[in-house]
Parts: sequence; C-alpha cells; structure tokens
Amino acid sequence: MQTWIRFRRPDGDAAYGRLDERDADRVIEFDGAGYTDPRPTGNTYSHAALELLAPCEPGKIIALWNNFHALAARLEKSVPEHPLFLLKPASSLAGPGDAIRRPSGYTGKIVYEGELGIVIGRECRDVRQSEAASHIFGYTVVNDVTASELLNADPNFPQWTRAKGSDTFGCIGPAIVSGFDWRGASVVTRLDGNERQNYPLSDIVFSPEALVSLLSRDMTLKPGDVIAVGTSIGVGSMKAGSVVEVSIAGIGSLVNHVSG
Amino acid sequence: MQTWIRFRRPDGDAAYGRLDERDADRVIEFDGAGYTDPRPTGNTYSHAALELLAPCEPGKIIALWNNFHALAARLEKSVPEHPLFLLKPASSLAGPGDAIRRPSGYTGKIVYEGELGIVIGRECRDVRQSEAASHIFGYTVVNDVTASELLNADPNFPQWTRAKGSDTFGCIGPAIVSGFDWRGASVVTRLDGNERQNYPLSDIVFSPEALVSLLSRDMTLKPGDVIAVGTSIGVGSMKAGSVVEVSIAGIGSLVNHVSG
Repeated sequence: MQTWIRFRRPDGDAAYGRLDERDADRVIEFDGAGYTDPRPTGNTYSHAALELLAPCEPGKIIALWNNFHALAARLEKSVPEHPLFLLKPASSLAGPGDAIRRPSGYTGKIVYEGELGIVIGRECRDVRQSEAASHIFGYTVVNDVTASELLNADPNFPQWTRAKGSDTFGCIGPAIVSGFDWRGASVVTRLDGNERQNYPLSDIVFSPEALVSLLSRDMTLKPGDVIAVGTSIGVGSMKAGSVVEVSIAGIGSLVNHVSG
Repeated sequence: MQTWIRFRRPDGDAAYGRLDERDADRVIEFDGAGYTDPRPTGNTYSHAALELLAPCEPGKIIALWNNFHALAARLEKSVPEHPLFLLKPASSLAGPGDAIRRPSGYTGKIVYEGELGIVIGRECRDVRQSEAASHIFGYTVVNDVTASELLNADPNFPQWTRAKGSDTFGCIGPAIVSGFDWRGASVVTRLDGNERQNYPLSDIVFSPEALVSLLSRDMTLKPGDVIAVGTSIGVGSMKAGSVVEVSIAGIGSLVNHVSG
C-alpha cells in the first residue's frame, strides 16, 4: 500500500507526493502523478502543514447508479445487468476542504452521496476482468454531490448530468491508496458530525474489477480517470454551512462544506 | 470569418492552422488553438494535402436532446423549459475521415445525428445571454453518433452516456469557423450519398447564445469545449462500410465511415 496525494506547495504550485511509509507525516514530492512513473524531486514536506488538492486530475468521472444491493432493495429496483452510469465533467472537480457551491439559480435540495472511487492507472480498452486490477492505480473517497430536484424536473428526460455535473459537485480525496483491499471496508458519511451512511463495500453489485472491465468496453478509460462506484442507503440533503465528511478506513476522510 | 483547422504535419505532430483568407488552399500554421491567442510559426501548408484532425480538443462535449421544434413535434414531446443534455467524454472524439467503430459486444443499430457544434473560446460561468456571443470562438459540424439500442436497454435508467459516449462517437470537424452566422444555415446529412437530413438551424429551440448562457449556469464551460446543439428529424442507422457526410454550408463537410 502506498498513499499518494496532490497538494499546494509553499510557492503556490500544485504538486504530487507520496507519504513516507515509515513516517506518515513526511511527504516525498514527485514530479508527476503516481500512475505516470514519476521521480522524486528531492523535496519533502510535513503532511500536516499542507493544503491538500484533489489527488488526481481526471479527464472524466464516471458515476454509477444503483450499484449496491441494499439501495436497490430500498428503491425497489432490480439489480442492473450492466453498470448504469453518467459522467461528471472534469470541471466539477473539488478537493479536500473545498466548498460545495450551490448552482446559480437552483434553490432545491443538495445531497451528499458517499462513495468509493477507483483511480485508473493504465489506459483500458476492452480489458478482461481478470486483467482489470492491473489497470487500477488505487482507490480514493468520493462525495458524488447532487442537485436532486433537477433530476426529474423535466418529464421527458432525467437530468443526471445537470444534477450531478455542477462545479464543486465532484469532491475527491484526501488521497489515493494503491493496493487497498476494498472488500473488508465500509463507507461512513457524517453530516455535521452525525453518522448518516455506514455501508459495507462488500454489498456492491459490480465490483471495481468488473466495473473497469465492463466500462472499458463502453469507452476507453485513461490514467487519472475516476470511477465513483455508486452509493448505498442513507443519502440526505445538506444546508448552507453543513460540513460533510466521507470516510473509508485505510484511505482517509474527505471533508467538505456547503458554502453560503 | 476565419477558418481554423487542426491537422497532422508531415513530421507526424498535430498542429493548428488558419486558412489564408486570400487563398483557401494555403494553411498558415499557428502554435496553438485559435482561442488561445496563438502566433504564426512561419510554416505554411497546402490544405488539400493535409490529414485533418478534429479541429479542437474538448475537455467535454455537451450534447443536447430535443432542441429543434420539428423533432419535438415528431416525437410528440413538449419543448423543454431548460436545455436537456448529456456529456460525451473527450475519449469519444473523432475527426474528419476517422472510422466510427462499433462498441465491443454491441450488435444493435448505430445511428448518425447531424448537428451544429459550438466551440467555446473563453471560460464561461454564469454568463448572460447578451454576453454569450463573446465567449463563442466559432462553429463546427458534429455527428453525434449513438448506439441507439442501448438507450432503453435498462427499464430504470436511460443510458444516454453509454449510448453516446463510446470511442469515435464524437465526430467533429472539418473546421471551426469564427463569426459564422448560423441563423440562415441548414444541416444536411447524406448517407452513402443519399440525403437523409436537411433542416434549418432557425428551427432551434435554445439558440447557441441561449445555450452558452444557460449551460454556463449549470457548469463552467472551458475553451475548446464543444456544445452539440442537438439534431432534428431524419436520424437513421448506418451499416458497416456506410459513409456519412454532415454538411453545413460555410463551415464544410464532415465525412466519416463505419468500420466494417
């Protein structure tokens, strides 16, 4: 297991780093993202003092719908035969500590969705499930923020992209952990300190390996792309000033707040 | 009006260029896309001899649904109150002459949708309609290719992204024309030489300026992003080996074929 971060250096530039395995507060700076075969720059930093950024810069964020058995049961929907997904654009990216901003002109509910995120390490096209793991760089935490009242605002067209694609609605971080074993982990979401989601990733319908394989048949996955594997029960709305924390033990806690 | 292209240089590198207004076969190479305030490199080429590429590299392609009155009437759908859209990923991009490839494992219909494309020139966030034109770099031609039988393959979730997001399904080109007046233009689509679509852009529901303004409230639009404004009546399916040509007089003809 290696833990990779992206951060703002004292000179203001964005940089990549890996936590020293022998000293978790020591960040070893690299000259690129972990999946680009980067080299150490020679600089080190104290983790605690750094301003963290979203740990990668995805070209696309693929967000799954209805990918946990418990949620499918709650929604009274059948489990899908193929992953069901939409895209959140790169422009929606937000990092640890960033404010979640209400879209202009929207006055409805804004909800959190705590999720596991897969970060692609190698380009994938028509990858077999048995080979999928080698294309996964690591795992991160995602808050798949949604302007839920836009979803069904039009009777003829569910507006998934509009509801989930706004700036700051793709919260990702605080780190990417390679070699992370998701099978025993849970996603815990706390709203203003109160636990709202706590579900085991073992309840997933399409595993990360299955997702990478099946999605790579639909479109080429590129290094740095993120797959948000979908949420489970306990989704709820946030208010101006709310603090939302999505945690996966072994990866970390992603904390954001709603501006306003 | 200026006509901008992207092309492969004799040395294999991708490059940007503008057609000489006094000699349409003379391409003046620039060191970046037209919307980046580029400078001439001093190189010139013969247009006829160049391999053209997609004329920009969009971070996202926003594709509109139900944005022409004639199509809404044919579908018996009400005209929407807000633009209805999905995203095609950057990985779906294809240029003039590129093959349209069938997604792995999909055996159903693949359809053409001839459209006008807007190319963003300046970053847009919450832009007023009266200011939208200054954020548009120019216009191009789009074939919004769709694996139509995926759309409703799941009873609970219309798969717009999956149906329209495959590699090579975002055909764009052959050029970007700045200062183009779309109001008097028509989109003409020919399949193996037979005219299948011929509709006036004046029938549009949300004009390019309205789209840029309204979509910029939903998400930040970045230079090079493309908005495919939606198609009208006459959409149909293509077979292996089919040649499809989408033309807008004043911009040009985008020709692609279905790989066999």
